[in-house]
Amino acid sequence: MDEGRIEAIEALANQALYTGNNTWMLTATVLVFLMHLGFASLESGFVRKKNTVNILFKNCMIIAIGLLSYYACGFNLMYPGAESAGGFFGFAGFGLSLPEGAAGGIGYTEGAYSYYTDFIFQAMFAATCCTIVSGAVAERIKLESFLLFCVLFVTFSYPITGMWQWGGGWLAEMGFHDFAGSTLVHAVGGWGALAAIILLGARTGKYTEKGIKPIPGHSMPLAAVGVFLLWFGWFGFNGGSVLSGDPDGVSLVFVTTALAAAAGAIGAFIASYIMFKSYDLSMVLNGILGGLVGITAGADLMSPGIAIIIGFIAGVIIPFSVVFFDKLKLDDPVGATSVHLVCGIWGTLAVGIFGAKAGLGQLGIQLIGTLAIGAFTFIFSFGVMYLLKITMGIRVSEEDELIGLDLSEHDMSAYQEVEKLGNYSMAIK
Amino acid sequence: MDEGRIEAIEALANQALYTGNNTWMLTATVLVFLMHLGFASLESGFVRKKNTVNILFKNCMIIAIGLLSYYACGFNLMYPGAESAGGFFGFAGFGLSLPEGAAGGIGYTEGAYSYYTDFIFQAMFAATCCTIVSGAVAERIKLESFLLFCVLFVTFSYPITGMWQWGGGWLAEMGFHDFAGSTLVHAVGGWGALAAIILLGARTGKYTEKGIKPIPGHSMPLAAVGVFLLWFGWFGFNGGSVLSGDPDGVSLVFVTTALAAAAGAIGAFIASYIMFKSYDLSMVLNGILGGLVGITAGADLMSPGIAIIIGFIAGVIIPFSVVFFDKLKLDDPVGATSVHLVCGIWGTLAVGIFGAKAGLGQLGIQLIGTLAIGAFTFIFSFGVMYLLKITMGIRVSEEDELIGLDLSEHDMSAYQEVEKLGNYSMAIK
Amino acid sequence: MDEGRIEAIEALANQALYTGNNTWMLTATVLVFLMHLGFASLESGFVRKKNTVNILFKNCMIIAIGLLSYYACGFNLMYPGAESAGGFFGFAGFGLSLPEGAAGGIGYTEGAYSYYTDFIFQAMFAATCCTIVSGAVAERIKLESFLLFCVLFVTFSYPITGMWQWGGGWLAEMGFHDFAGSTLVHAVGGWGALAAIILLGARTGKYTEKGIKPIPGHSMPLAAVGVFLLWFGWFGFNGGSVLSGDPDGVSLVFVTTALAAAAGAIGAFIASYIMFKSYDLSMVLNGILGGLVGITAGADLMSPGIAIIIGFIAGVIIPFSVVFFDKLKLDDPVGATSVHLVCGIWGTLAVGIFGAKAGLGQLGIQLIGTLAIGAFTFIFSFGVMYLLKITMGIRVSEEDELIGLDLSEHDMSAYQEVEKLGNYSMAIK
Repeated sequence: MDEGRIEAIEALANQALYTGNNTWMLTATVLVFLMHLGFASLESGFVRKKNTVNILFKNCMIIAIGLLSYYACGFNLMYPGAESAGGFFGFAGFGLSLPEGAAGGIGYTEGAYSYYTDFIFQAMFAATCCTIVSGAVAERIKLESFLLFCVLFVTFSYPITGMWQWGGGWLAEMGFHDFAGSTLVHAVGGWGALAAIILLGARTGKYTEKGIKPIPGHSMPLAAVGVFLLWFGWFGFNGGSVLSGDPDGVSLVFVTTALAAAAGAIGAFIASYIMFKSYDLSMVLNGILGGLVGITAGADLMSPGIAIIIGFIAGVIIPFSVVFFDKLKLDDPVGATSVHLVCGIWGTLAVGIFGAKAGLGQLGIQLIGTLAIGAFTFIFSFGVMYLLKITMGIRVSEEDELIGLDLSEHDMSAYQEVEKLGNYSMAIK
Repeated sequence: MDEGRIEAIEALANQALYTGNNTWMLTATVLVFLMHLGFASLESGFVRKKNTVNILFKNCMIIAIGLLSYYACGFNLMYPGAESAGGFFGFAGFGLSLPEGAAGGIGYTEGAYSYYTDFIFQAMFAATCCTIVSGAVAERIKLESFLLFCVLFVTFSYPITGMWQWGGGWLAEMGFHDFAGSTLVHAVGGWGALAAIILLGARTGKYTEKGIKPIPGHSMPLAAVGVFLLWFGWFGFNGGSVLSGDPDGVSLVFVTTALAAAAGAIGAFIASYIMFKSYDLSMVLNGILGGLVGITAGADLMSPGIAIIIGFIAGVIIPFSVVFFDKLKLDDPVGATSVHLVCGIWGTLAVGIFGAKAGLGQLGIQLIGTLAIGAFTFIFSFGVMYLLKITMGIRVSEEDELIGLDLSEHDMSAYQEVEKLGNYSMAIK
Repeated sequence: MDEGRIEAIEALANQALYTGNNTWMLTATVLVFLMHLGFASLESGFVRKKNTVNILFKNCMIIAIGLLSYYACGFNLMYPGAESAGGFFGFAGFGLSLPEGAAGGIGYTEGAYSYYTDFIFQAMFAATCCTIVSGAVAERIKLESFLLFCVLFVTFSYPITGMWQWGGGWLAEMGFHDFAGSTLVHAVGGWGALAAIILLGARTGKYTEKGIKPIPGHSMPLAAVGVFLLWFGWFGFNGGSVLSGDPDGVSLVFVTTALAAAAGAIGAFIASYIMFKSYDLSMVLNGILGGLVGITAGADLMSPGIAIIIGFIAGVIIPFSVVFFDKLKLDDPVGATSVHLVCGIWGTLAVGIFGAKAGLGQLGIQLIGTLAIGAFTFIFSFGVMYLLKITMGIRVSEEDELIGLDLSEHDMSAYQEVEKLGNYSMAIK
């Protein structure tokens, strides 16, 4: 038998496995990308008509800023390489730098995916943390301040805490488990959102002496489309976090993800019916998202039955949390803090309660991770927002808020009922 | 040569093929998942503004209920295993139960996909049969009764008839061919819809002494988005039904699916122009869906040219069928019976007329399958709906129908033109 | 060692690689398919409410016509086979014809994808060139004339110039580089659009003595959804153009595509802010598309940093180009000529300026390709449109334009604010 021929066959089989794994990672990447449309739709649907262009504009800019910031600096802060193992901080330099020996690709991360696949998959994640903030601060934040906050958040805050776990830092060494980012992505976005809405204050007219005034979103179809697209993308978010196309691993994650989302819907349906005596679509939509956020930390560890329990509890949490934040007069137009922060914490702790790693010790570690990342992110976000507040200002004028950000910041309306003269003719004639 | 090394290479090649196949099945799964957004959009677009929240709510609940019911019971009713081969009924127990020897994954169904992949792909299919019903009964059914019907339909009816063919039951043994479910999924949904609308009656004001009153949907963009998403998802629905990533098989199915949909559009375009002398967007949209349903039974057997003929005929059927049901005063706001039932039957019979299995004998078998599954499903659905009608009631009051289900069942509107006080402030202050 | 066993393992490894590659190509195919929904949404959002049904109708018909025309004739004109190598024209016969020896599939194009995969991937591309035209001629073209134009454009024009490069024709021989079609798809659509809008004239009331009257689109959410879906689909458009699942190749293309789109958003953001002093959502949306079109020709050749530069410049071009066409009184409701023609040319030339093939010689070749394909397409389109103009007419009456095409051509409205009698009851009672 010819040794060369055997080697050629082995290389062929390796290339085939590498191709299959990498194809899944890239498919997961496009699914995660579409979550940005999911967020854009959801947030648009949940804001008032007069602020629709503004929220769409922010969502377009967030993905653009997110990808570029993460390329410029974030990726190499989050994955600084072996030298920073177990540590708090590391940096491998600006831009992308193909590691030595990785050019051939197949050597990179044991044939599961290429270097560029690694970057682009992670980059799609990075921008989501800003999108979470964007929903919470909607309808009253200044566009420039928000975009500046996003640049800093994606460039520094998200990657540094991300490195603690996914970059091989101190939390990873301690045994913290956060499979796809209940804490690292969702709670991080949620903490940023919380800091921002504390400093920003509620929308004018939301909390009055006569009670809390719900401000319904302008388009439930847009909101529902957003939630379905987010669920769709979540199969890539969680499924891609297996970091290969391993059939047993990815398919288990699909099952836990899908069942937790379904159970989240049921949980929110029941809890909100008991609380409000009506079939509340917003709650069911957020219940689905809550179930998804809740299962994200342990999607790889749970049995299908446990996934249903975790998702159900997350769904039940949603209406309670929404009411809780409202009682604190923390105004969050889309419920982002309830979905991403509260259910993110729940999902992270659930890893210590259910599944293969359950135990008091693990629960303690999960708590440490939650608190450490929460503290860093909240302080970072509060600090940056505070600096923006005392310098550029973070809130639009009350008049602009009343008119709506579409006209005051963008000089255009989201919908044209009747034909009228547009606004840039002055500039070009 | 080292035997161990050869074995390792063989295992590597097996793992690579397994990964490639399974990746395709999971990709198909997410595509089928998105069909639920397609249905939600389509149905929302085709109902009146005042019933939009209700239809979105139902579509959220259907996918949740569908996944959980199929997990709890349906999957093991539909795939009871070898002992029930050739039979009418079997049950492998509640929940998921990894078959013996399947833990390693690669042994499961000859390395094409894992056990959990099998479940989640099939689970995405299961819920669609309820969604089909949901469109037909829109704008007048009671929410609670409908949801209860869904639980029973996905838990029992769909899996039992599904088992007859896909679970290796008596129809499979007889040689019935229904590749991806023109009958097993679409006609099943259509029969359920037919039973329901017979018992439910038409929307108030639809059939008057002065003639038939068309009730146009409130948003054609939503409807069109829905149809494109359904077409998109159908590549997973049919393409995944190859049950592996086999390049020749899946790519043929892609071609037949795409061409039949395109021909369906043309068929409906021509037929509806001749009938109504106008370019009717609803008909073209349903023509696309008709073409897709029509090719589904034989997407693996037809040449591209034959697929065009099958799809074209399905498209032509659509306007005739819509008019036919209207003449019978069977009110179906979205045309679900025409698309899924009539074109489902057409597609199933077409397997006996065209392609590799064509012949009088096969046509007879296709007819037997159509009738048997139709009879079971219709009787089951009629029975359940009848019981619901005489107990809880299945129809909202005429007053609620006039107000619209959004306000009467959900106490909220789909769109907010101007700002107004929402509805749950009473509950929480 | 048993030779038969080695051969079996080799075949297994080959099959695995073939499956992985083909799965990626089919995944890319469905992504490109969804671009048609992207175009439909974008164009719907950018037209006035009264022309929404019409643009949706056209987009449904375009994909149907595109797939069928390309099946009937276009594919074999574009890929006529080896005999036409280096030439200007070739034709391999009507319909699909599995090449000899390709039945086994794996022999076809060296195991990267099957024959039917090849066809369906290319067919999804073909229809896009008409969709580009559709946006530019919106709100005033006659439906029948437009559909006839589409048939001829996809059947003849697009495949003939496509053959010059991708079919192995004279441009390929000369060394022209157009990776995924900045020229072959986008500029081709753009030239067709330019010819059409010259002959068609501007919308009534657009260019008045008092200046240019902007006519804002009726739904910014629809437009934004469209752009996100196009970006999503572009990962298949560019990623599939690698023509295999090669991990290193596809992942590089993902990175360049994503970063160029992001940079396009930033470029358009800055340029339009400087020009119009406002945050213009339409410009940012078209900036994203401009970045995507710009990188398409060289997505396989550029480093991430260079991709950012190319995309940024494309984004900056957008507002200038929009103003430029407006000054020429060439009315393009969606900015298709700016996005697809101008940025298509920019992207094609950029291959001669940046990246692995940069050089004066290459720039010259890129210019020759641009001009040759531009000349052919413009003359073909102008000729066909001119013939249609002097025979059937290409423009609706001024009265119909005022009423809107939805009522005048389709006898229906896109949105139903209040319930009213529909329009086909007369025909069927």
